[in-house]
Amino acid sequence: VFKSESQFVRWLQSHATLAGSELRLGIGDDAALVRPLRGHELILTTDLSVEGTHFSSDMHPAESVGHRALARALSDIAAMGGKPKFALVSIALSRRYSGEWIRDFYKGLFRLARRFGVSVIGGDTAVHPGLTIVDVIATGEVQYGRVMRRSGANVGDQIFVAGRLGGSALGLKMLRAGTKHGSRETQDAAINVHLFPEPQCRLGEFLSKNRIATSAMDLSDGLSTDLRRLCEASGVGARIHTSLLPLAIAPPRFRLTLRELERLALHGGEDYKLLFTVSPRRARSLPRKLAGMEVFRVGEITKAGALALVRDDGRKERLLPQGYDHFRCRTKRIEPLRKHGPSFGSS
Amino acid sequence: VFKSESQFVRWLQSHATLAGSELRLGIGDDAALVRPLRGHELILTTDLSVEGTHFSSDMHPAESVGHRALARALSDIAAMGGKPKFALVSIALSRRYSGEWIRDFYKGLFRLARRFGVSVIGGDTAVHPGLTIVDVIATGEVQYGRVMRRSGANVGDQIFVAGRLGGSALGLKMLRAGTKHGSRETQDAAINVHLFPEPQCRLGEFLSKNRIATSAMDLSDGLSTDLRRLCEASGVGARIHTSLLPLAIAPPRFRLTLRELERLALHGGEDYKLLFTVSPRRARSLPRKLAGMEVFRVGEITKAGALALVRDDGRKERLLPQGYDHFRCRTKRIEPLRKHGPSFGSS
Repeated sequence: VFKSESQFVRWLQSHATLAGSELRLGIGDDAALVRPLRGHELILTTDLSVEGTHFSSDMHPAESVGHRALARALSDIAAMGGKPKFALVSIALSRRYSGEWIRDFYKGLFRLARRFGVSVIGGDTAVHPGLTIVDVIATGEVQYGRVMRRSGANVGDQIFVAGRLGGSALGLKMLRAGTKHGSRETQDAAINVHLFPEPQCRLGEFLSKNRIATSAMDLSDGLSTDLRRLCEASGVGARIHTSLLPLAIAPPRFRLTLRELERLALHGGEDYKLLFTVSPRRARSLPRKLAGMEVFRVGEITKAGALALVRDDGRKERLLPQGYDHFRCRTKRIEPLRKHGPSFGSS
Repeated sequence: VFKSESQFVRWLQSHATLAGSELRLGIGDDAALVRPLRGHELILTTDLSVEGTHFSSDMHPAESVGHRALARALSDIAAMGGKPKFALVSIALSRRYSGEWIRDFYKGLFRLARRFGVSVIGGDTAVHPGLTIVDVIATGEVQYGRVMRRSGANVGDQIFVAGRLGGSALGLKMLRAGTKHGSRETQDAAINVHLFPEPQCRLGEFLSKNRIATSAMDLSDGLSTDLRRLCEASGVGARIHTSLLPLAIAPPRFRLTLRELERLALHGGEDYKLLFTVSPRRARSLPRKLAGMEVFRVGEITKAGALALVRDDGRKERLLPQGYDHFRCRTKRIEPLRKHGPSFGSS
């Protein structure tokens, strides 16, 4: 597909950049140059996607790998209440991957970028004998003083999530089963939730512009793990009610018990839905849809302490984070990784 | 060293960030938040450092890998005439690497960051079975309209480089020889030029503030390769005189011919010195030192066409780029990679 790197770079240049007065220099110099918007602050985030950890070449088509790599970063911008603007893409490409793969990877990435008005303005490419590793950097802008943080939750605040939980983990389960049985089932909506997650940028902007949320973050590692991070940052605790969890909807032929769906909703990663808290007064009058997105109250913020799970029958349990710690490395699985700094406390 | 990822993140937080009114949120949320300086534009760059390509664990101590990973990005900021401000560090760490390695990697990176007033404000970490891959994102600011580009060189402009060329390639040569003979010679200044290159940020700012350069870039892949990129971006040609090349100084016990030193100066990578062009009028009165850095005139910009090399005896040759093309992958060596977009033309 690409005979030389310069041919590849020309292809990138012709596809990467949208028009925009804030962009002064895109791909093609030592660095990119942008003009920050006045009265706004700049959000910066970076997300690794590692072959064998975040994706595998037999289950994830190249378009999905590109889409997901950017979606991870855009979801962080959404969680801060920002409008995404620019992206840079660094890719250490395995020699085993073809020119078609890298073209399709960028197709998936560019399609998502265009839909959110994001310009790809730079990056770095290496071809090497190891695994394929992608690092996507995204910038966003947020009006001065309107950023949403993890640290603003107060006791009594109501906890909301936007959209159903566990859909990505369910899709991965189905994909694994399908792969095992030789059928890809890529047409299936449940699988597409996993392959092409939708970052909730419009909702994030809406929440920040209207000062609805006292705190916010995106669900990348599962509710039990991410809620704990939000609580640690805010110095509070939380209670979740299983009866309130918006469970993913599994296709009938793929039989899952209610308990299994609950597990996916509590611990499944890569949903990229927003988790946010709202003051009790505001929560009472909150519409069921915000920025076109259905939001669900799932619990409330409590005093600092362990996270609690209230079962349908009223039994209370501890809600333990079932996240992945890279420094303990107990398991090998396709699971999201942790960003720097989510955990302030001990885990 | 680090028992868990949260412990590692706390260590990072306590070392990473310098005070600064422009930083609003560092490590510890979904993304970092900065306040852009008024009247300035924002420079963004990202650089991969890949094990086996940019460094090898037997030759490069962890401190050097951290230093070099950041230096690559700061050198891009310097080339644009910017003042470096913030960095984000993504690292896919091989399971083979120890906690000591990652601590020493960050020590080397933080030491360089502090010296240049750069705050590390975020990143992403993964531990995986593959090779260690680092991606450093750096931001810089440059006064509105003062950015230096590759595309501004005019016919007749004089070509300058800042500092001696080929020093990094020479240091690598010595390091290889030393490793082979079982002696590390890390005390040697020539080896340190390779292990701990100094990005020329002060010179870059000086050139841009005083509008000295008509075009600029940093030498990461060797003069013959990078000058060609500058010429392609500017739509010009160039002539280099071997008699003017500021050759690296090899220790006496390491015997190299003049021709070998010339080859290193023309084609050796990873020098991270600035290459810039100056109008003939301005060049006549240019001091030998700028911002404390010795600058050398090495040739002149000509009409578009092949790059020419004029030998000491007056013979003229074509100067062919001896860079590395990742899509052709002819060689395996520890050599710098190419950033997106340096080459507009065919190569």
